[in-house]
Amino acid sequence: MSVMTMAAKSAGGKLERHEMDLGPLGDEQVEIAVSHCGICHSDLSMLDNDWGMSSYPLVAGHEAAGTIVAVGSKVHGRRVGERVGLGWFSGSCMSCLTCMSGDHNLCATAEATIVGRVGAFATRVRSHWAWAVPIPEGMDSAKVGPLFCGGITVFNPIIQCGITPLSRVGVVGIGGLGHMALQFLNKWGCEVYAFTSSESKAKEARSLGAHHTVNSTSDADLAKVKGKLDFILVTVNVALNWQAYIDALAPKGRLHIVGAVAEPIPVVAFPMITGQKTLSASPLGSPANTTRMLEFAQRTGVSPITETFAMSKVNEAISHLKSGKARYRVVLENDLG
Amino acid sequence: MSVMTMAAKSAGGKLERHEMDLGPLGDEQVEIAVSHCGICHSDLSMLDNDWGMSSYPLVAGHEAAGTIVAVGSKVHGRRVGERVGLGWFSGSCMSCLTCMSGDHNLCATAEATIVGRVGAFATRVRSHWAWAVPIPEGMDSAKVGPLFCGGITVFNPIIQCGITPLSRVGVVGIGGLGHMALQFLNKWGCEVYAFTSSESKAKEARSLGAHHTVNSTSDADLAKVKGKLDFILVTVNVALNWQAYIDALAPKGRLHIVGAVAEPIPVVAFPMITGQKTLSASPLGSPANTTRMLEFAQRTGVSPITETFAMSKVNEAISHLKSGKARYRVVLENDLG
Repeated sequence: MSVMTMAAKSAGGKLERHEMDLGPLGDEQVEIAVSHCGICHSDLSMLDNDWGMSSYPLVAGHEAAGTIVAVGSKVHGRRVGERVGLGWFSGSCMSCLTCMSGDHNLCATAEATIVGRVGAFATRVRSHWAWAVPIPEGMDSAKVGPLFCGGITVFNPIIQCGITPLSRVGVVGIGGLGHMALQFLNKWGCEVYAFTSSESKAKEARSLGAHHTVNSTSDADLAKVKGKLDFILVTVNVALNWQAYIDALAPKGRLHIVGAVAEPIPVVAFPMITGQKTLSASPLGSPANTTRMLEFAQRTGVSPITETFAMSKVNEAISHLKSGKARYRVVLENDLG
Repeated sequence: MSVMTMAAKSAGGKLERHEMDLGPLGDEQVEIAVSHCGICHSDLSMLDNDWGMSSYPLVAGHEAAGTIVAVGSKVHGRRVGERVGLGWFSGSCMSCLTCMSGDHNLCATAEATIVGRVGAFATRVRSHWAWAVPIPEGMDSAKVGPLFCGGITVFNPIIQCGITPLSRVGVVGIGGLGHMALQFLNKWGCEVYAFTSSESKAKEARSLGAHHTVNSTSDADLAKVKGKLDFILVTVNVALNWQAYIDALAPKGRLHIVGAVAEPIPVVAFPMITGQKTLSASPLGSPANTTRMLEFAQRTGVSPITETFAMSKVNEAISHLKSGKARYRVVLENDLG
């Protein structure tokens, strides 16, 4: 099966129209005609080979929405014509204890959509059936893609960490992930604090669901929240004044990381001990929790705020994203077919 | 009320018999005639002013067992003649949200038995009634003291971290705390791994309840447990090869610290994210959980292994403890009266 893609031929190279052969469809795979695909910072990292695991030609794209056009002979629970989304993971072993516990996103051999295979900046993309998660009727294909990576990355911790409507929570970084986190946590019933250094983003954060904003560059502002928050979600991938955030935690509070900050986080044991505090982290979410997220998002009106580009203009879209001006997630509309 | 103590007159000084006046008993306080008191490493830290918060003459001792001999006018639920134990905390505000949630050990204004007041290397010690926790009938006063500090420090995380009999757990450091942790976790129904660098301690660890031992200085041994453990309890207060322990965690695993290691722990975000791992820490436990621990210890036969010295020989006892030869907790029998 031949598909049209937008592929990088080398690290950092411009993306070009490039036809590729996907070979025979796997028994347990579905093939999705991509209607839309969001752009995530991980796409940029893979295109630039920041993580040293890229192979070229590289086809990025892992926030896909589309329609199933073919199914393998052993596919369960998915059918041709069904509208689905696909995120960072495109497969997992399905049989290890972790998969069998419903934690497919933690499977040691999980397959990533854009690592060593063809992603969704393309007319078609494939995945194991389990990872092609049905999109509820009525959700806009042009908007839903970012939920499958950025969205589930910030929604899953709410489940995993036992956040309740009584939790006082903070979100660090009001970008592609953070702007969804604010909405989810607000609709979850929490009291929500947004940490940002940008005055304009502080205003937007309030409109997205933050009840309070904290200027993360102001020691006075950080001091005001000392000992207050039960849960702080860090969506950025840069080194922070970590101790200030640990100090902002209430007794039994938790600092949770979803941004792959490279520099080790220096955790001082003593204040962690006295406050019974926790540092944790997580990747994306399982197919089951992705389904739960979609239902919750639809019911409560949570939606990514997106800007749309034609997929053939992906290079412009990437430049826009890299400029830091995207509000908040860029989605490509497929015009490659 | 005048009491006889064994007090240090200066940092690192020998302890000497020293009579002190405790003044009037507080309305909510009880006064305990100390029959026995364990020695904890925190006593040594306070005696040596390692934490810069010691005042002299300093009377250490915060693993006390004894009998209530006087109660203040507003004491609830304790009576003269009752046998009780007293640990690190001797008071908490009782009215903040944390105390009212049952987490008195996390109260921001909790009072420590040996910080700025007279500890239990003495004929009498005082505390708020809530922190003088009744000792179940039949438990040996000569053995029970260490449960009130070392014991609750390792038992409380089992509750706080939701450990179940299905958890595969590890204990790092087989000393005063670790030897109780092994027993508790074994009786809790867990599969228990002991990490130790000492061959003789490995054997003892098995007799204490470890099903497996891991040589913590052997890369090959550490590699064998990679990805295996749901919970690792760190009872030492020295820097470790932290990444090896984080790597030993299973998906969703938790590294929990109860030793006040001074050097920051460098936590690399990426492996924490991919495995949804947690680093957490905690101090001691609440009075309610201390009661639960005592009942569980009695029912299951968990007991500190102790060596006994006369309280007047506390300097010899401290030397023995400092030599690293104590197996595993030193208890002083009161002969000061």
